[in-house]
Amino acid sequence: MAVTPDDIRDAARRLSGHAVRTPLLESPRLNAQAGGRLLVKAECLQKTGSFKFRGAYNTLSSMDPDVRARGILTYSSGNHAQGVALAARMFGVPATIIMPSDAPDLKKRNTAEYGAELVLYDRFGESREALGERLIDERGLTLVKPYDQPSVIAGQGTAGIEIIEQCGETDASPDLLACPAGGGGLVTGVSLVMKEAFPDIAIHPAEPAGFDDWGRSLAAGARQSVDPDARSICDAILTPTPGEIPFAIGQRTLSSGVSVTDDEALAAMKTAFLELKLVAEPGGAVALAAFLSGKLPLEGRTAVAVVSGGNVDPAVFRQALAT
Amino acid sequence: MAVTPDDIRDAARRLSGHAVRTPLLESPRLNAQAGGRLLVKAECLQKTGSFKFRGAYNTLSSMDPDVRARGILTYSSGNHAQGVALAARMFGVPATIIMPSDAPDLKKRNTAEYGAELVLYDRFGESREALGERLIDERGLTLVKPYDQPSVIAGQGTAGIEIIEQCGETDASPDLLACPAGGGGLVTGVSLVMKEAFPDIAIHPAEPAGFDDWGRSLAAGARQSVDPDARSICDAILTPTPGEIPFAIGQRTLSSGVSVTDDEALAAMKTAFLELKLVAEPGGAVALAAFLSGKLPLEGRTAVAVVSGGNVDPAVFRQALAT
Repeated sequence: MAVTPDDIRDAARRLSGHAVRTPLLESPRLNAQAGGRLLVKAECLQKTGSFKFRGAYNTLSSMDPDVRARGILTYSSGNHAQGVALAARMFGVPATIIMPSDAPDLKKRNTAEYGAELVLYDRFGESREALGERLIDERGLTLVKPYDQPSVIAGQGTAGIEIIEQCGETDASPDLLACPAGGGGLVTGVSLVMKEAFPDIAIHPAEPAGFDDWGRSLAAGARQSVDPDARSICDAILTPTPGEIPFAIGQRTLSSGVSVTDDEALAAMKTAFLELKLVAEPGGAVALAAFLSGKLPLEGRTAVAVVSGGNVDPAVFRQALAT
Repeated sequence: MAVTPDDIRDAARRLSGHAVRTPLLESPRLNAQAGGRLLVKAECLQKTGSFKFRGAYNTLSSMDPDVRARGILTYSSGNHAQGVALAARMFGVPATIIMPSDAPDLKKRNTAEYGAELVLYDRFGESREALGERLIDERGLTLVKPYDQPSVIAGQGTAGIEIIEQCGETDASPDLLACPAGGGGLVTGVSLVMKEAFPDIAIHPAEPAGFDDWGRSLAAGARQSVDPDARSICDAILTPTPGEIPFAIGQRTLSSGVSVTDDEALAAMKTAFLELKLVAEPGGAVALAAFLSGKLPLEGRTAVAVVSGGNVDPAVFRQALAT
């Protein structure tokens, strides 16, 4: 395995005191309605509003200081960009973020406010990879990938260490866990330590309908891609195919995938608002939606749902509350 | 003093494992904007969506078991009702909640779903106190007040013990703290332990404009009342005057009051949404609003803002996001 539970424990030590130990919340009212116990890992409360900070911080933390000092680079307009930008600022090293020039102003501003340098490219005219490689060569930067990198997966998996500790604090022994899956760094990192602590637990990657590449890949035993015409509001997890390293892990640790509609994701956002007082983004809410919609049964069981992020535009959140 | 720091430490032991240890969050982006450090105690993530659960649970926990078994009673249509109802259910004892018959259906349902018996009264025709006393006599119930009771204040003050521990975990030594104040159980309970740990800290009760009874009472050295015609959307903290026991404590521990407009509370709710991924209710957001509006200066300082609750109707939250 490219990542082991020990790598994740090492990452947890590096992150201690630097990342938020996000709470594992439950709603007595939701539990009563479901006839089971639903524990919600509120990773939307992580620094920069998503779990991505964990992987970025662990990667920078484990780099050679001289290499790190030259700076890091990533391609992202979303949660990973913010996680990388903040982690770089905390280490006092420059971050270069390659972002399409037509990315929303809010995302550009949010990332720039963490002190990163944005390099914009024309997504119809330029290759971001060619641009990135040129900057890496010229400036001696190091690439931090969003998921297909062992140090990133290990950092993201530290959420699982906390879930295990927090289950102990509340006497919970989970039967199943669901977690949003894009490239799959979070769900597979978490799965490595959860399967060690709870060997019988079933771990389900949760995806938007039409973007069920994890579900289909696990069923087929080989990585599958989504239909390029598919659309969803769950922007944080619209990856075309599982990451290579995550998939190699997930084939051993994951149970079947589960997918939810945009309406089910919006309804879960409203429930998180009403019952947990959490702001979840659509992609961050798909695992919660899998339970609330009944696609993963809760009756008589103890389950964990990871809410992976909360970076949602006010207009979309208002739409969720209006349903 | 009717309540001591030792009472609060005892309460913390009773609540351990039963109440949520709510996180102390901060936003690197907000800190950069403010030129200071703002730590947010996210008490909206407490069970039942507000700090009220702490006082209710501590009160039930410290009651004689035979007395407790006969049941408890309170007057409330809001956060205290839900806190009492859940605490009673956790101890397996009946809760009777006296609520005006014209209270919003959502509040009635939310409280009933915790298993409490609602007794409705006509707020224009009946005295709720007379009704309550009759039920207390007939059924042998015990009254749990929302703030003017030492065991309630001690329970609510446990949020302060956590803030102290969490400041230690993040190397923060706060110069000031602001906390929403209605009756004042929370702000004074918190103040007792915070002043012990940080003798130089200034602790400010935060209130809605027009409901600045704490601010005026502290300035006058005697309890003052609000104008009965005053109105605010901050429904959770619209008490007419400081509680008697809280005021006796607050005269020794609190600095000046600070008040914010409804628009400032709504703007703080939007900032909590964008930067902290928290759902705050208007009354729960007034201390945060005091900092964000600049009424309490942050520049060069370390401050704690308590967000005391998140029980807000979707329509009001949508209004906050539209600003």
